[in-house]
Order: sequence, then structure tokens, then C-alpha cells
Amino acid sequence: MTSRPALAPARSVDDHRQRIEDLLRPLASRDTERVPMAQALGRRLAEDVYAPLDLPVFRNSSMDGYAVRAESVASVPVTLPLAGVVAAGNPGENPLPEGAAMKVMTGAPIPPGADCVVPVEDTDGDGATVTIGKSRAAGDFVREPGTDVRAGDLLVAAGTVVAPRHVAALAAVGLGELTVTRRVRAAVLTTGDELMPAGTALQPGQIYNSNGLALAAALTDNGVEVVSVGHSTDDPARFRQVLAEAVAAADVVFTSGGVSKGDFEVVKDVLADAGGEFGSVAVQPGGPQGLTVVDGVPVLSFPGNPVSTVVSFEVFARPVLRWLAGLPEIRTAELELREAVRSPAGRRQFLRGRVRGDGVELVAGPGSHLIATMANADVLIDIPAEVTELPAGARVWVRWL
Amino acid sequence: MTSRPALAPARSVDDHRQRIEDLLRPLASRDTERVPMAQALGRRLAEDVYAPLDLPVFRNSSMDGYAVRAESVASVPVTLPLAGVVAAGNPGENPLPEGAAMKVMTGAPIPPGADCVVPVEDTDGDGATVTIGKSRAAGDFVREPGTDVRAGDLLVAAGTVVAPRHVAALAAVGLGELTVTRRVRAAVLTTGDELMPAGTALQPGQIYNSNGLALAAALTDNGVEVVSVGHSTDDPARFRQVLAEAVAAADVVFTSGGVSKGDFEVVKDVLADAGGEFGSVAVQPGGPQGLTVVDGVPVLSFPGNPVSTVVSFEVFARPVLRWLAGLPEIRTAELELREAVRSPAGRRQFLRGRVRGDGVELVAGPGSHLIATMANADVLIDIPAEVTELPAGARVWVRWL
Repeated sequence: MTSRPALAPARSVDDHRQRIEDLLRPLASRDTERVPMAQALGRRLAEDVYAPLDLPVFRNSSMDGYAVRAESVASVPVTLPLAGVVAAGNPGENPLPEGAAMKVMTGAPIPPGADCVVPVEDTDGDGATVTIGKSRAAGDFVREPGTDVRAGDLLVAAGTVVAPRHVAALAAVGLGELTVTRRVRAAVLTTGDELMPAGTALQPGQIYNSNGLALAAALTDNGVEVVSVGHSTDDPARFRQVLAEAVAAADVVFTSGGVSKGDFEVVKDVLADAGGEFGSVAVQPGGPQGLTVVDGVPVLSFPGNPVSTVVSFEVFARPVLRWLAGLPEIRTAELELREAVRSPAGRRQFLRGRVRGDGVELVAGPGSHLIATMANADVLIDIPAEVTELPAGARVWVRWL
Repeated sequence: MTSRPALAPARSVDDHRQRIEDLLRPLASRDTERVPMAQALGRRLAEDVYAPLDLPVFRNSSMDGYAVRAESVASVPVTLPLAGVVAAGNPGENPLPEGAAMKVMTGAPIPPGADCVVPVEDTDGDGATVTIGKSRAAGDFVREPGTDVRAGDLLVAAGTVVAPRHVAALAAVGLGELTVTRRVRAAVLTTGDELMPAGTALQPGQIYNSNGLALAAALTDNGVEVVSVGHSTDDPARFRQVLAEAVAAADVVFTSGGVSKGDFEVVKDVLADAGGEFGSVAVQPGGPQGLTVVDGVPVLSFPGNPVSTVVSFEVFARPVLRWLAGLPEIRTAELELREAVRSPAGRRQFLRGRVRGDGVELVAGPGSHLIATMANADVLIDIPAEVTELPAGARVWVRWL
């Protein structure tokens, strides 16, 4: 007997990721929604926001002190009659009599006729008069309207991810709501007769379903709204039903399991019929991958081994999801490998690693079932497809989980 | 007339920040709560979590293939009778007859008596027999129970901030809920007769209240739960009432405004009576600061200029709040200043800057009212207290907003 014919050449990691990005990038033009300012934090602004008014709104004092005409304090010390007090919030419409002073608080309007403020530290007031010890030039401690922003100026551009500093600026011009792009909506759908939810007593042959919670957490962590986390047995009719619900509710669907070479590959069987591409990507873990568009909704099918699911998400989906959410790119670095590694020829390998100083050490072996051990990893170590072994001390690229 | 006596020497930025850290650090031992896994993401685990069971739970196949005894495939090709099929989820309790093969799917139990798996790629089956083209050693493609984690092993340590990879591991051992430290609860309380909420038409002398929304956003962004955002006029009775509500609901209260040298400093007037320390910190912006403990709750009082409020939060509160939330430290870097700056003697200055390549340029001037302009900044430039001018090209430390 001879071995079966060789598999068709596997697709490269970059090619597969690019196909997924091509499918998901159009979600950048998804719907917008109007939300209260507090809910806009971390969301992408959907439209340019122009200042509806000048800031400062009116001429005001930057100090607690006395508003005067500069000419009245040209020669000091000088004692001036006190013509009133302007607190912040006062209309400040009473003009300054010639040769007098008016007490002003920080942020209070400068009375008409005054052209500078003498800080309270340089004065001595008794309630009826004030003695001023220091000359000031016109404009000193006066904030002119529109010197921060002018009505009609662009304040924050469309596409900006709203940070606290934007909230400060947008609130200062009186905005209470913003139009933002809604989050990408994802549905998660795990498959496998053997998977049981938390809290059940396992029967022989059963394991707990970690992929549903893990994918949901990874999506949430990358700015995606998880609209449902479903599960299907390996029964095709059941899978079709749960898939239809997921497709109806989400912009993108993630499945796990059922894509390999076994006899009961429900995801591959159903979705290949629906025009999906199922095949091998030259990567470990996570080789068997599927990609289907159902009713316009991309369905990404990851293998079911827990580590394969997590790594597939990291490598194929996370970069474009972060871009869609406006989050920073995944952090990468070149570090020194602390121990030798072997890697299969022709497959790009992502090993779980832990950064120590400027080096990286392995966390357990390559087995794609080592999900508990993976909790100790903080990076994936990226071993190129053509590399079969690396000595301790070699430089490797890592990407943070 | 002479100037007033010099102010008492101002406290340094580091001293004031240290005092705030000393007040807030005890919040690390705040209450815990039991939450569903999905809500635990990003929270601090409150207790060590030990694996309640082995992973893998049972001996299972890492490939789709045929479970055999290695001795049956020592000489190949060999054709063996097919004694059954074990799908994932099957109990897998039927033993392998001597000299036979059983088909097994990935994750399915290894039948008693089998000691290795031949991957389907190296076989040719007809439903009644299977012809095996490659020898295998005992243990090949078999995952032994407990090789990922053993029941009783520490899985994730107390204090860990729950990331998706922890969710994956914790879900894999069947956990559906976690005990986490609750978020720090903060109340925000703005003051000032001149401040109006969004959506109102401004009267002369009034401005929009940006500090409430800006502080709330900054707190949320740093892992804090904002339990209330209140406002008080400059009336002490009103302030006392709103403050009492804030103190009753929160672990820490942030006030803005009312701490300076004006006639109507409601925050300083009320809280100094309650034992608060109010004085000057050698910093620009944000010099006037207050710190009070009311009924055991720290009350941090920031000045009311919008930029002063934001910078006070960044410099004095954000580092310890991130530490309490388990978030990474604020990113800092030494960059080249793209233009000359001047700075007041004896005061550490935080200028708003924008990073361009490996340099940093100024965003507007030092005025603490320039809140709209601040939307364009991504860093604070940290100018030491003793520095009064720096040429273009000087190296400066920046901290990301």
C-alpha cells in the first residue's frame, strides 16, 4: 500500500489572514448610533465634530484678582476704589468705572472697560479700596474668547477613538451625545457532542466547553460586541438551525470544531455545501480552517482543540478586529529565545511563550490541547514555516496575547 | 505697601502623589464578588484557583485515525479488522480486541487496550478493515490525563487580572463563575455657579461643565466604576449635602473647583473645616490641591480649570488607580523636544504634546483653560521644577495620556 496522495499545498498564514481581512474590512462602514457621552468612550466617532461655539465663550479672568485698566496701575503702589465683585457665573455686564478696580474670580467675566487682572497675591484689599503693588500690561491674565477654539473649527475628526481628553473637549463646547460607529457584532458557535457547559457532571468521554467562553472573552477584549454564544451537537440539522440564528444576529460568526478529517465534521459538511472553502493552512496549531459567507455574513471556522481555537483567533481575526474597533495594533518584539526549539517543516508555528527580561521562554510543548498551561503564556512565539530548529539564543519575533 | 508674605513652600509633585497613593492603596483589600466568567474579564482574581480535575480529563486521541496496539503495526503495510468507531463524546469503554483497530476521532477516548493512534492520512479503510501504512510507537498521538494540569494544581493565582487566556483555562476545568475583587467605586463632584450641563442655553458668564464628564471618562478608562457624577453650586450647604451622598456611595471622591484663592471657594471652605489639607503643589497646571478624609473616604480636590483637572488626575490619581485595577503602568518615553520651551522656576510643568516620530511637539500653550486644544495632545511633557528653559532638540520625558 502507498500513502494517500499528498494534500493540496496548504495556504500560507498570511494568505489566509489576508482573505479574512478582505472579508471583514467592509465592516468599517457599519451603522452609526447616537449615544450619551459616557457611552462613547472607546468608540469610533462617526462624523467630524465642529465647535458650535467659541472657547473661551467670553472674555474671562485666569486668576483670582482685581480687574483694572493697565493705565490705572502704571505707577505702583496705588490704591483704587473697589467698584464691585464679579464671581464666576455672574453675567459681568457692569462696566468698570474709570480709575477703579473690580474684584474678579478665576473664570469670571472681565468687566467692560477693564483690560488686565492683577492677581490677588499682589494686592491688599479692605472691601472699599484695594492697594495694588505691581503694574500689569493690557491683556495680562485675560483669556480672550476663541483663543482655545473658534466656533466652526474642527474639534475632533471622524474616525477618532474617543478618549477621555476628547470627552473633555467635546463636553466643554456643550455636547452631551455623540454619533459613533456601533461595535462589530459577533456570534460564537461551538460544536461537538463531547462538550458540556460549566456546572454539569461530566460523563465518560465528555469535556467542558471552553471555546465558547474563550472566544467570547477574546472578542470582548478586542472591542467586539458578542451578541450570542451558542452550541451545537454534531447533528447537521441542529447546526444549521443554530447557524441561521447566529447569521441573522451578527456581522461575523465564529465557529469552533468540526473542520478536520474525522467522520463527523458537522461544520465542514454543512458549510462546504454552502460554498465554504475548507482546507489546510500551513500553521501549527490551527491547520484546518474554513471560511464561508452565509447571507453576506462571514463565517470563520476554527478547529476545535482549545489552543488551536485561541491561536486561530489571535493570528487570523484579531488584527482586523482591532483595526475595526480603532484599538492599537498588537504589540510585537524581537526577543532572545531562552531554549532550543524544533518546528515542523513547511508550517509556521506559534508556540506559547513567557517573556523574561529581554528573552522569551517556552510555556509547555506544542500540543494543541494544553489550554490550562496556556494561562501562563503572555506571548506567541512566531517560528517561520521554513525553520525546523532554532538554538537557544536565537532571535525570534513574539506577539503579545 | 509690600507684597504679602511668601506662601509656604509648595509641596512637590512626588510628595503629593505619594500622599494620595498612601490614602488609596488600602483599597487593594476591598470586597470581592462572585461573577459569571464573562463579567470577570479584566478584573482581579480574588483567590487562587486550583484545578478541580485533571486535564485532559481522560486518555484521548490527538488525531483523527485508528487506535491500535503498537505491536500490531510493527510491520507494515498490515490490514487489521475494524472493531468499531469512537466519536468524540462517546464513553469509549469498549476494549480494543487483540490484533484489531478502532477508528477514533480527535478528542475521543482511546479504547482500553490500545496504546497509540495511526493518523487517518497513513491508512486506507473500507469500513470492515483498515490497511495501515506506517508503524507507530506506544504513546503516539495519545494525550494522557493530567498532562496539561493535574487536579489540585494551582491554575491561576489570586491577583491575576483575568485575560481571555485565563478564561480559556478556567472554563476548560468547568468553572462558570469566578471570585474577583470588585472595581474601585468613585464619585465625581464638580462645583461652580458658572457651570451648566450640556443642552442648556448659556447665559452671560456661564460655561458648560466639562469636568464631570471628563473625570468620569478618565476614571472609567482606568478601571474604576463611576457611581455618581454630581454637581454643586458654590453654596456650602448644597455642597455639604452632595458631598455626603458621594462619600456614602464611593471608595474615593473627586471634586473639581473651589480650591483656589477666590472669595467663594466652597470646596476648600467646607473641607478645610473637616480637617482637609489645602495648599499649593509646585506644579503647573494644577497648583492648588486639596486632600481630605471624610468618614474614612479619601476626597481628592482638584482645581476647576479644565486642563488643571485633567492633568491633576493624570499625575496624582491615575498611577495608583491603574495599580488598583491591575492595569499596566502608564507608558513613558524620553523623546526629543521639537521646539524650545520656557517653564516657571520652582514648578514642575506638564505641557500638552503630540508625538511625531521620535520627537514631541507642543500642542498649544500652557494656559490651563485650553481644553479643546488638548484633544490634539497624546502625551504630557514633563518639565522638571528646576528647569526654566529648554532648547529645541533637548531630551524630555513624556507620559501618554
